[in-house]
Amino acid sequence: MRSADDHRRLVESYLDELALTPELGGLEAAMRYALGGGGKRIRPVLCLATGEALGCPPETLLPAAAAVELVHTFSLVHDDLPALDDDAMRRGRASTHVQFGEALGVIAGDALLAEAFRLALTYPTPSVARELAAATLGMIGGQYLDLTEQDEDEAAVHRLKTGSLFGAAIGCALWVAEVPERKQQPWRALACEIGLLFQIVDDILDGDGLAESHGLDGARLLADAAVDRAEAALAELTADISVLAEIVSSVAARTS
Amino acid sequence: MRSADDHRRLVESYLDELALTPELGGLEAAMRYALGGGGKRIRPVLCLATGEALGCPPETLLPAAAAVELVHTFSLVHDDLPALDDDAMRRGRASTHVQFGEALGVIAGDALLAEAFRLALTYPTPSVARELAAATLGMIGGQYLDLTEQDEDEAAVHRLKTGSLFGAAIGCALWVAEVPERKQQPWRALACEIGLLFQIVDDILDGDGLAESHGLDGARLLADAAVDRAEAALAELTADISVLAEIVSSVAARTS
Repeated sequence: MRSADDHRRLVESYLDELALTPELGGLEAAMRYALGGGGKRIRPVLCLATGEALGCPPETLLPAAAAVELVHTFSLVHDDLPALDDDAMRRGRASTHVQFGEALGVIAGDALLAEAFRLALTYPTPSVARELAAATLGMIGGQYLDLTEQDEDEAAVHRLKTGSLFGAAIGCALWVAEVPERKQQPWRALACEIGLLFQIVDDILDGDGLAESHGLDGARLLADAAVDRAEAALAELTADISVLAEIVSSVAARTS
Repeated sequence: MRSADDHRRLVESYLDELALTPELGGLEAAMRYALGGGGKRIRPVLCLATGEALGCPPETLLPAAAAVELVHTFSLVHDDLPALDDDAMRRGRASTHVQFGEALGVIAGDALLAEAFRLALTYPTPSVARELAAATLGMIGGQYLDLTEQDEDEAAVHRLKTGSLFGAAIGCALWVAEVPERKQQPWRALACEIGLLFQIVDDILDGDGLAESHGLDGARLLADAAVDRAEAALAELTADISVLAEIVSSVAARTS
């Protein structure tokens, strides 16, 4: 059984070696820049760990795992644009639109999204790509709420903007592992709790969102409750959950 | 056999009634605005006409035809952004980012692309969505060339930026009609000529591109040659090509 770190290394080397569509030409540089830069790869790692717990080898999961990471990266590139969050820095270096100009920021993001679908469509059935489309649309719905609504809808923003892709990370692995829909619910409940936990810890680290509305101690209590529910969800699964449990702990304990 | 106008009405009413993903919430207004406004619907009409020539009823073709139109619309919304072509007007009214703000222009475009894949993924096999992904990536490659290269690469820009989606309009219909890959080539040659013809006429109407490099008379000669090649491609097909011939003539004769 591979550790989460093993999975992370597999994801990194798969992304490093990923052949992009040749017609994209020089746009590849901006896409690779956006994909690099030391992301935590939590979503693709979760995808690989879920699939392996279900008996799937990583080779069969990597295109789906990478597709989820590409959608995540596309969303960061567009979120950082001046018209949205206007973030000049991302992970300690210039964000993509600062490095390559705003026009290439827009179309590199577009291309990352289209490449994600190309990868998800390498499977023989459409189920992985359908999962990805639904999650992407949910995530964009969350971005819309975040851009336009008052804080009162914070839970919906989190569920959509962050939760959708955590759901897809696990959901895509379920389709690759051919888990029938009627048996997916316990896994999807786990995805939901991990996504929520990730967001609570994010807010604690940034001192905003739930850390602002509930105070730091209140937010830590929320995180503890999410860990408890994630562990309860894990206990429901009939699979080797050791690596998934490790991921839950590391999401709870992360400091960056 | 339906006329091109019949197909256009079918496309309009399908797009009017298209249920978007509920999680997109209020973003739907910006997406519907972008989709409206009197586009010619040439790509989806071509998709329906191709499919009908191959014996497919329009109902089975409409999701694919609409998906191609959504990708086209996404590309216009992003192309119009200040960082790209900075067009405040589109088809005689405010472009989407002017009407809804730049942030919603970015994410409404993203959502149109993701909805296009959702529609293409309603088919039982992944072939329509694969066609769409490849075409979208080619089109973005063309946008990149257009943004960054000198005019010398004009033919490549046209082939990618315009030709890719004309190819997908016909290509998606071929997959829906279950035309095996080895029999697709004559249809794809037709798509290539119609795409080129569309672009030449565009340049003639705008007085730029090929009309600039070849002069108006030279560009008209190029258009006539493309019509001849499109008609030759049509003559190769063993199908009722009357509506497709009508489309070629109307693309050649269009004045707006």
